[in-house]
Amino acid sequence: MSDETDAPPAVAGTVPPDASGVLSIDAMGGDNGPEAIVAGLAAAMKAHPAIRFIVHGDKSKLDSLIARRRGLADHCVTRHAEDVVAMTDKPSQVMRTGKNTSMWSAVESVRSGEANVCVSCGNTGALMAVSMLRLRKLPGVNRPAIACLWPSRNPSGFNVMLDVGADIRADADDLLQYALMGMSYARNGLGLERPRVGLLNVGTEENKGRTELRAAHDRIEAFAEDSGYDFVGFVEGGDIPGDRVDVIVTDGFTGNVALKTGEGTARFVRDMLSEAFRATPMSKVAALLAMASLKRLSKRIDPRRVNGGVFLGLNGTVVKSHGSADETGVAAAIALAYDLSLTGFSERLRARVAATTTYMGDEA
Amino acid sequence: MSDETDAPPAVAGTVPPDASGVLSIDAMGGDNGPEAIVAGLAAAMKAHPAIRFIVHGDKSKLDSLIARRRGLADHCVTRHAEDVVAMTDKPSQVMRTGKNTSMWSAVESVRSGEANVCVSCGNTGALMAVSMLRLRKLPGVNRPAIACLWPSRNPSGFNVMLDVGADIRADADDLLQYALMGMSYARNGLGLERPRVGLLNVGTEENKGRTELRAAHDRIEAFAEDSGYDFVGFVEGGDIPGDRVDVIVTDGFTGNVALKTGEGTARFVRDMLSEAFRATPMSKVAALLAMASLKRLSKRIDPRRVNGGVFLGLNGTVVKSHGSADETGVAAAIALAYDLSLTGFSERLRARVAATTTYMGDEA
Repeated sequence: MSDETDAPPAVAGTVPPDASGVLSIDAMGGDNGPEAIVAGLAAAMKAHPAIRFIVHGDKSKLDSLIARRRGLADHCVTRHAEDVVAMTDKPSQVMRTGKNTSMWSAVESVRSGEANVCVSCGNTGALMAVSMLRLRKLPGVNRPAIACLWPSRNPSGFNVMLDVGADIRADADDLLQYALMGMSYARNGLGLERPRVGLLNVGTEENKGRTELRAAHDRIEAFAEDSGYDFVGFVEGGDIPGDRVDVIVTDGFTGNVALKTGEGTARFVRDMLSEAFRATPMSKVAALLAMASLKRLSKRIDPRRVNGGVFLGLNGTVVKSHGSADETGVAAAIALAYDLSLTGFSERLRARVAATTTYMGDEA
Repeated sequence: MSDETDAPPAVAGTVPPDASGVLSIDAMGGDNGPEAIVAGLAAAMKAHPAIRFIVHGDKSKLDSLIARRRGLADHCVTRHAEDVVAMTDKPSQVMRTGKNTSMWSAVESVRSGEANVCVSCGNTGALMAVSMLRLRKLPGVNRPAIACLWPSRNPSGFNVMLDVGADIRADADDLLQYALMGMSYARNGLGLERPRVGLLNVGTEENKGRTELRAAHDRIEAFAEDSGYDFVGFVEGGDIPGDRVDVIVTDGFTGNVALKTGEGTARFVRDMLSEAFRATPMSKVAALLAMASLKRLSKRIDPRRVNGGVFLGLNGTVVKSHGSADETGVAAAIALAYDLSLTGFSERLRARVAATTTYMGDEA
C-alpha cells in the first residue's frame, strides 16, 4: 500500500470497505493512451459524484494527467505498473510474462477485493487470459463469455448479446450457461425483471440448425420457469436490434461476426447519411434544421455509448472497452461498470450460477 | 409445348435457341402473390426490351394479369402449374410431392435448357432442394452455396458474400469452392476483373479461428495466382460493407446470421431516421429540403435493390428473391438474373469449377 501514501490526500479513506462503487482502471492499454482514459474518468466522475477509482499504469504520468482535472484526484488512487500490454501481444505470452503490466495490476485489484469491477481498453484476448488466470472461473462455468449491449427497439433501448468473442466454440451446456448469465446481466444492467431469452439460429423452426443448437434449445427451455425468464425459442439475425427478445444467446464466433457486422453496417449507413447531407446546398440547410433530431439519433446508434463488453462467468466482473475508445467511450464503459458494481452484480451472478449448477450436477 | 399455342402471338418465336436472355419465373410462391411478380416483370421489361420470360403458375390468372400490362404479353410464355409451394412446406416433402408446383416447373425450364436462369420468391429451403434434385450439383462441387450482394463502400457499390444459407456446415474444401464460385460471380455480376477474396473470421491474424478456417486460408491462398483473384486473408464482420474486399467467404450459418443482422441493423437505423425527421416541425421542414438526397441514400441501402440470392454450384443458375419482395424487389432480382443470363455465367462457372477440380483431384 506504499503507493497510497504518495496519492492525493483523502484518497485511501474514500475506498469503502465492501469495494462497492470502486472501479479498478487499466489506464494504459487503449489506442488513445492514458489521456483518453483519464478524460473518461473525469466525465464519469461528473455524472457519479460518489465513484472511486484505483488507476493502474505509469504513475507519474497518471498523477500529472489526473491533477489537471479539477477534483479528480480526490476520487483516485494510482498504482504504478512498469509495463503495458500491446494490442499485438499474444495472450499466452502475457499470461507468462505480464505480471508487471497495468492490465494485470488492474485485474489484481478485483481479485484482492479492493475494487469491485475492472475496466480496460486493452487487448481483448490478453485481458480474458489474465482475467481467467487471476480471477478463475465461477464454479460450474465451463466457458466464460463476453456480453455486449446492442441498440434495439426495446423500451430500455438495448438488448444483451453473448458470447461476442470470449471463445469460438460453445456446446449445449455452455449455451445454457450463457442464457443464465445473460439473463442475470439483463436484470442488473437493464433493470428487466423477467428477461426474454432467445437462441440465435438461421431459422425459427424448432427442427432447424446445428445439433448442439437443438439440444441447447431444450435445455434453455427447461430452465426458464425456475430461473425466472421467458424463453422465446430460436431468433434470427434480424431480431438482434428488434423487440422480440432481450437476451440473445450464441457462440463467440457467430456473436463476434454479428457484432462487427452490425457495427460496420451502422457506421456505413451513418457515413452515407452525412454524405447525403453534404450533397446539395439545400440538403446542407436541411442538416442544420434537423440537427437536434439527428444528434439524438446519432447518440442512440453511437457504438461509443454502448461501449463495454462484460466478461461473465469469473469470480469478479471485468468490463472490456473498445481499444479505440475516446473520452465518451471510456465514460460509457465506466458508467456501465459503476452500475454493475452498485447492484452487487458479481455476487448475484455467482448465486445464479451456483443454484443451477447443483441442478445440472443432479441431471448428469 | 401445347401451352405455347395458347400464348400470345410471337411468343414462341421470341425464345432464342441458346436461351440467352430467357428467364424462367416461378410466379406463385411469394408473400405478395402473382400480382407483385407480374408487376416486377413489367418493370424489368421496360428496362430491358429484349428480355423474355417463361412464367409458371396458375395460367388463367397469370394470362389475365399479364394482359393488363401493355406489351408484356409479347415477352411472356405462360405455363400452367396446379400447385404452389407454401412458405411452411418442408423441403423433403416438396421433393417428394412437389412435381406439379410452379417452383418445380420453373426449375424444370432451366433443366431442359429453354431458359437460362430461374427466378423464384418462394420458400428458400424448398427451392434449394428442388434445384439440387433437378439441376444436380456441378461435377466437383460438394456443397452449393447462396451468394448475395451487399451494399458496400466499393466503387461498384456492392460486395459479394457466400454462403448465406444453403448449408449450415462447410469444411475447408467447401470454403475453397465458395471462393472460386464467388470470384466468378463477382466477375460476371459486378464486372470486376480481379476480385479480392477474403475469408470471414473473428480476427485478421493468421493463427486465429477454427481449424477448418486456417486450412481454408492456406488453400484459398494457394489457388489465387492461377485462378486470377487476390486473396486478402481473413476479414471481419466490419469488412462486409467495407472496401478491403470484394468477395466474402463463409459457411452458411455464419453468413445467414451476418446477412440478417446487417439487414436488421440497416432497417433499424432507417426507422430511427424517419422518426427523427418526424420529431419536430423544424425537422419535418428539413426532411422536405433533404428529400432528394435522402432518397438517393435510401435507394443505396434499400435491401429490395439488392434483392436476389444466387444459387451457385448447380447445372444452371437460380436466383432466389425475398419472399416479401414487391414490384421493385422482383424487378431487381430479374435484372440480376438477366445480367447473369447474358454474360453466360452458368457456363463460365462450370468451366471455372472444372479447371480447379482437376487440380484438387490431383492433390487428393
